[in-house]
Amino acid sequence: MIVGLLGGGQLGRMLALAGYPLGLGFRALDHSADAPTGRLAELMVAGFDDREALVRFSSGLGLVTYEFENVPVETVRFLSERVEVYPPPEALEAGQDRLTEKRFFQKLGIPTPPFAAVDTRDDLDFALQRIGFPAVLKTRRFGYDGKGQFVLRAEEDARQAWGALEGRPLLLEGFVRFDREISVIAVRGKRGETAFYPPVENHHEKGMLRLSLAPAPNLPPHLKQQGEDYALRALNALNYVGVLAIEFFEFGGQLYANEMAPRVHNSGHWTIEGAEVSQFENHLRAITGLPLGSTDLIGSSAMVNLIGELPPIEALASIPGAHVHLYGKEPRPDRKLGHVTLRARDPQTLVPRIRQVRDLSGI
Amino acid sequence: MIVGLLGGGQLGRMLALAGYPLGLGFRALDHSADAPTGRLAELMVAGFDDREALVRFSSGLGLVTYEFENVPVETVRFLSERVEVYPPPEALEAGQDRLTEKRFFQKLGIPTPPFAAVDTRDDLDFALQRIGFPAVLKTRRFGYDGKGQFVLRAEEDARQAWGALEGRPLLLEGFVRFDREISVIAVRGKRGETAFYPPVENHHEKGMLRLSLAPAPNLPPHLKQQGEDYALRALNALNYVGVLAIEFFEFGGQLYANEMAPRVHNSGHWTIEGAEVSQFENHLRAITGLPLGSTDLIGSSAMVNLIGELPPIEALASIPGAHVHLYGKEPRPDRKLGHVTLRARDPQTLVPRIRQVRDLSGI
Repeated sequence: MIVGLLGGGQLGRMLALAGYPLGLGFRALDHSADAPTGRLAELMVAGFDDREALVRFSSGLGLVTYEFENVPVETVRFLSERVEVYPPPEALEAGQDRLTEKRFFQKLGIPTPPFAAVDTRDDLDFALQRIGFPAVLKTRRFGYDGKGQFVLRAEEDARQAWGALEGRPLLLEGFVRFDREISVIAVRGKRGETAFYPPVENHHEKGMLRLSLAPAPNLPPHLKQQGEDYALRALNALNYVGVLAIEFFEFGGQLYANEMAPRVHNSGHWTIEGAEVSQFENHLRAITGLPLGSTDLIGSSAMVNLIGELPPIEALASIPGAHVHLYGKEPRPDRKLGHVTLRARDPQTLVPRIRQVRDLSGI
Repeated sequence: MIVGLLGGGQLGRMLALAGYPLGLGFRALDHSADAPTGRLAELMVAGFDDREALVRFSSGLGLVTYEFENVPVETVRFLSERVEVYPPPEALEAGQDRLTEKRFFQKLGIPTPPFAAVDTRDDLDFALQRIGFPAVLKTRRFGYDGKGQFVLRAEEDARQAWGALEGRPLLLEGFVRFDREISVIAVRGKRGETAFYPPVENHHEKGMLRLSLAPAPNLPPHLKQQGEDYALRALNALNYVGVLAIEFFEFGGQLYANEMAPRVHNSGHWTIEGAEVSQFENHLRAITGLPLGSTDLIGSSAMVNLIGELPPIEALASIPGAHVHLYGKEPRPDRKLGHVTLRARDPQTLVPRIRQVRDLSGI
């Protein structure tokens, strides 16, 4: 079966690497001829709004999935008249607008930071009165890796942020002084069966994920349970098929949903080595109707993103338990070029090795 | 860097899957347009004796390796004038002729079954007098998976085998009533550093590998040491770079070398899940000059080959700890179509799961 991938980035590349052993083939659609998936799968270069290209793209595919959540919903709906698309377009839609997403969480009883829709300057003032400083003003659509976000600590920030974002649908959120960020990678199969990787602790720098620790150190059992429970509610509400990632803030013994991604997720890359079956294989198992694979841990893992420039590969490869994953992308500031997963028997062993990777990466 | 692969079979495919994360690209040369590596790498369809094709093949490559040991040595020598080739052509040559190979082992003090070159009927009679029945008459070149071999138990067998093989350079070997077959997968880097996977126990059916158990159950420590020591002698004698596999018979508390393969090996497929770094990645690390990766075990593994026809993938994928690897080949009797690796914390857990895979495979 040939699986169509909307987007040809590193997530598509890792999906293909996980899928070839299952006997699957891959065809990616991307606007760039340099897309990383294209080095190891068929690549069609076209825009997501090119209907003629979409028809050619879908021809002969067994199903379509995406590795990128900012695919236009119309594209996915158009394709879904021709070929099965997983996860369902509704899940894509729910995650594309931060307001819809927050309301979705709210409806399911999943706590979130306080939030308010902002379309006018009056809305902003009113929302700031209710939520208070500090707060975060964000575009409702097409944000990622911290882009399109402003932290507001005082009136002056509000004025500047409004100047930059005015005219786009916005969202104001309370700034959560969270203890840490946790993410849950969950998967649901076609018959409604589910599986959950243990929650992971994430560290960001400049709005980009830099480090994930799996499992999240010292996570109280009730929070692990809470994360799975919330993810399960989201999966079932969306009649979801595939991998879904939810980011949470941990604060005061409670998880608050920040956002979700209807796809494999950067904070799940450690599963390639650190879990019995990876998020990539489990996404493919789910969408092709195979039984889900075990999400059991293999030791402890840490994933460090390689961003902007690559450290010497020889040095990375010489660190015990280091697994290097390069995406075949040209170096460029703030670009995710690869990641390293460190796997060891226990988290203590990982500490100096994480330090080594970070030193090599100049962070 | 683009790595050239001589041969585009499943070994090339698994090398490519291991190499993309290291940032490598791949170009395979194979006589078949259906070669499994071609689904995920550049494939050039040509014969190994097509000099013009070899020149085009080598253009732009960083180095060349092979995934198939019956590549003509002239091909490799021709290429090695244009681009680095690893493992060295001498290693390929040493393994292509069973007589040369046995003499190589002998020279290094590695025990082998008794053997004799057979070119004439008189040679055969003389060798049978010395070695005695039962014995095995084999072609000296281009044998694999038990092809071109006859077991001789009496004069009548000798007559029949001679009728079938007469005119080709042959080898008579004493038939070893071995306790079991063991293989050692070893790797040597460009600076002479070496690493060894723990020896594996292999089971054959109809001359083809069916099952490997890693590590070999209850292997006495001195035999593990002996296997590594013999492999080290071979690696160093050949100034080897890359993965080398040696098959041994275990008999009476001693290992006897049967044959070697200057490449990644079917009895090392379990290393994808069952070792810290797989044989495929370690081969690529060695030939590209990266430090070798750890050969430490991750639990216990069993690898079952899927031969001739594929069992239902859903059923295989539902076995706990099962990792399915399909090669993208059309089913055909006696054809290796894929393998399943079972990984668990301990060998006891594997036993019923191996049974499940074997039942599904109808063996």
